[in-house]
Amino acid sequence: MRQSQLFGKTLREDPKDEISANARLLERGGFVAKEMAGIYSFLPLGLRVLGKVANIIRDELNEKLGAREILMPALHPIENYVKTGRDKIDILFHTELASGGHLVLGQSHEEIVVPLAKRFISSYHDLPLGLYQIQTKFRNEPRAKSGLLRGREFIMKDLYSFHATEDDLEKYYEKAKDAYKNIFARLGIGDITFLTFASGGTFSRYSHEFQTITDAGEDTIYFCENCLIAVNDEIIGEQPYCAKCKAPSEKLLKKRAIEVGNIFPLKTRYADAFDLTYTDETGVLKPVIMGCYGIGLSRVMGAIVEVHHDEKGILWPETVAPFNVHLVEIPGKNKADIVKKTAEKFYEELLAKNIEVLYDDRADKTPGEKFADADLIGIPLRVVVSEKTLEKKGVEVKKRGEKEARIVSEKEMLKMLEK
Amino acid sequence: MRQSQLFGKTLREDPKDEISANARLLERGGFVAKEMAGIYSFLPLGLRVLGKVANIIRDELNEKLGAREILMPALHPIENYVKTGRDKIDILFHTELASGGHLVLGQSHEEIVVPLAKRFISSYHDLPLGLYQIQTKFRNEPRAKSGLLRGREFIMKDLYSFHATEDDLEKYYEKAKDAYKNIFARLGIGDITFLTFASGGTFSRYSHEFQTITDAGEDTIYFCENCLIAVNDEIIGEQPYCAKCKAPSEKLLKKRAIEVGNIFPLKTRYADAFDLTYTDETGVLKPVIMGCYGIGLSRVMGAIVEVHHDEKGILWPETVAPFNVHLVEIPGKNKADIVKKTAEKFYEELLAKNIEVLYDDRADKTPGEKFADADLIGIPLRVVVSEKTLEKKGVEVKKRGEKEARIVSEKEMLKMLEK
Repeated sequence: MRQSQLFGKTLREDPKDEISANARLLERGGFVAKEMAGIYSFLPLGLRVLGKVANIIRDELNEKLGAREILMPALHPIENYVKTGRDKIDILFHTELASGGHLVLGQSHEEIVVPLAKRFISSYHDLPLGLYQIQTKFRNEPRAKSGLLRGREFIMKDLYSFHATEDDLEKYYEKAKDAYKNIFARLGIGDITFLTFASGGTFSRYSHEFQTITDAGEDTIYFCENCLIAVNDEIIGEQPYCAKCKAPSEKLLKKRAIEVGNIFPLKTRYADAFDLTYTDETGVLKPVIMGCYGIGLSRVMGAIVEVHHDEKGILWPETVAPFNVHLVEIPGKNKADIVKKTAEKFYEELLAKNIEVLYDDRADKTPGEKFADADLIGIPLRVVVSEKTLEKKGVEVKKRGEKEARIVSEKEMLKMLEK
Repeated sequence: MRQSQLFGKTLREDPKDEISANARLLERGGFVAKEMAGIYSFLPLGLRVLGKVANIIRDELNEKLGAREILMPALHPIENYVKTGRDKIDILFHTELASGGHLVLGQSHEEIVVPLAKRFISSYHDLPLGLYQIQTKFRNEPRAKSGLLRGREFIMKDLYSFHATEDDLEKYYEKAKDAYKNIFARLGIGDITFLTFASGGTFSRYSHEFQTITDAGEDTIYFCENCLIAVNDEIIGEQPYCAKCKAPSEKLLKKRAIEVGNIFPLKTRYADAFDLTYTDETGVLKPVIMGCYGIGLSRVMGAIVEVHHDEKGILWPETVAPFNVHLVEIPGKNKADIVKKTAEKFYEELLAKNIEVLYDDRADKTPGEKFADADLIGIPLRVVVSEKTLEKKGVEVKKRGEKEARIVSEKEMLKMLEK
């Protein structure tokens, strides 16, 4: 895409009142625009990142868990929440139908997915079943803050699994853990994201979170360096040791972290509320056993920025970068026409090879502004075409993390992009 | 995909209280599940169709109009609606922030997109600009009905264009008309969808709708057979003639139709409300001139079913069908193993060729049930593997609209799918 045609200008200054790196850099880079606290618009660059995050998640859930994607509504009847006892939880947004009827906005979808699954599950033949969606969630947070980390309206993947036995849930649960590990690895935060034992709320002793270690996190975890797992601060009183090697909490590292995913064994809590049962091999009616598995896509996008940035801007992992390469044209004074023509030629060639390229063809920007924008936007590879590169019969390449640029041949540049 | 693994069983009976074909067939076919009147979940088959509709729209808007995709939120501050005078319109859903603040759910996005564009538009250099999203809309309809045709929560593409001059808006508006014609043609309803002159509401004399002629429609139009355009019943009093050839209303055909798209010249109505201006070539500050352009994706999906169905089920156009081919295995009594093996081989071969195939591998269904499901689901080509086809060294093919099946070679079958 031509940068002259991109919607969403970069900003030189940090937005007012924002401290967190993701809020500052995503807005300055033209990825998002804040509408209200915790409510954002996604601009073209941000939407591209979000799409890549979504496709990595889809890929793992489809392939590794055989889960099936659906799309459920945001408007939920309050009656379903009365059944599960969640009608009084304070993060619900409430609204009313013109024709009469009290609705809430979905902050999670147990109250919809269980009655939905009930229409299609009757026998053990129908189990196990995994249903997920990537959809907008609404949470009436009293204090939305930290950019995309704690939103009032945000994009989430929620997966629900249905099983005949606890054993089967457990097997699926372990496979889901593996799928989650793959997802966070592919998102570029695998090496600092760890399975964390957390509270199970009212219906299960424990649940599991995936926590990404960063000082920007709102959560505190106790991390075991040997086992690469952690315990959430909220249960360290009950469980003052590593769940695996049993090392005491004093030996664990106290760290700030962002919860990027969570998985819950729901057991029969929601099945009971909606009388979701199946007939087993012997004809006996039994309650369906469930698990649920969430990942906040917009939150993950924020977490990636918290982890991968420097003072100049974002350093996107290749897998989620809005483009593979940032082609920057620096026309100069003497050979502007030839530089322009050469850059245009590269642009067409890269597109022809299906390489996603952002082409800085802007005529009204100085080289300094273009380089600052490239660092801010954070595409993994910057390729400059200028008088100098023409003379040296090559292009100037610099990976976003590197300090120094170097001249390479066109062929070598293409090789860097092919993998 | 294996049909044994598909979520969403077909139903033999029409759902209760549903009259319209799209409500009956989409629910029976396992495309959608009704949650409340006007509120649906999309099951895997339905989500696939929706995705194909979305991609056709994206393709035309990106390529033909150079429009840029963004994603705006559903939660809107009421203050913005006070500015445009739309805070009292009766189809709004209202809600409140826990921290205080009156919000409404987006039924359209002028109140968000104009302030957003204002942050980035300052000079004539920034114009024209086209921004669109594919997003969930909420309308508090007193009587939601007719399946996906009139929803309370539905998926819509809304495009907003920004211009320096009325001339430029007019040019873009004509290009948008062409893009819409292409979209409806590619969606398989081009030959019965016509540009229709309609009321412009409070801020413009006229607007334009795209109306698909079908008895299931809620609107009445007067259609000119010569010019292939129409006049909406709501303005036939003011304009009792064809807009092009001026034929009087008595010569026009009175038809029922579904509004599948609409385009509005907004002029400066919303720009004025938010003081959206630009500086022209001479340094003079002027209001930005706007147009808006909607297509209801879920409604279009319903309209396609209304137009393309028979008593047995849906006949999807190839461009939006959930799969290209429905491979049906009929094991029979004597050679069940070989039939199964052959069908599995075809399935793998089709997948390897990137042909989207639904493979009816279900062991617990009779041939009659499988054929009935194939007709109901409405994939354009049915391919049967059975004892008979093994004997004849071929496969049995039947296009969804055809009465008779015939045996062809595997090679010939592949040829039917390659195009």
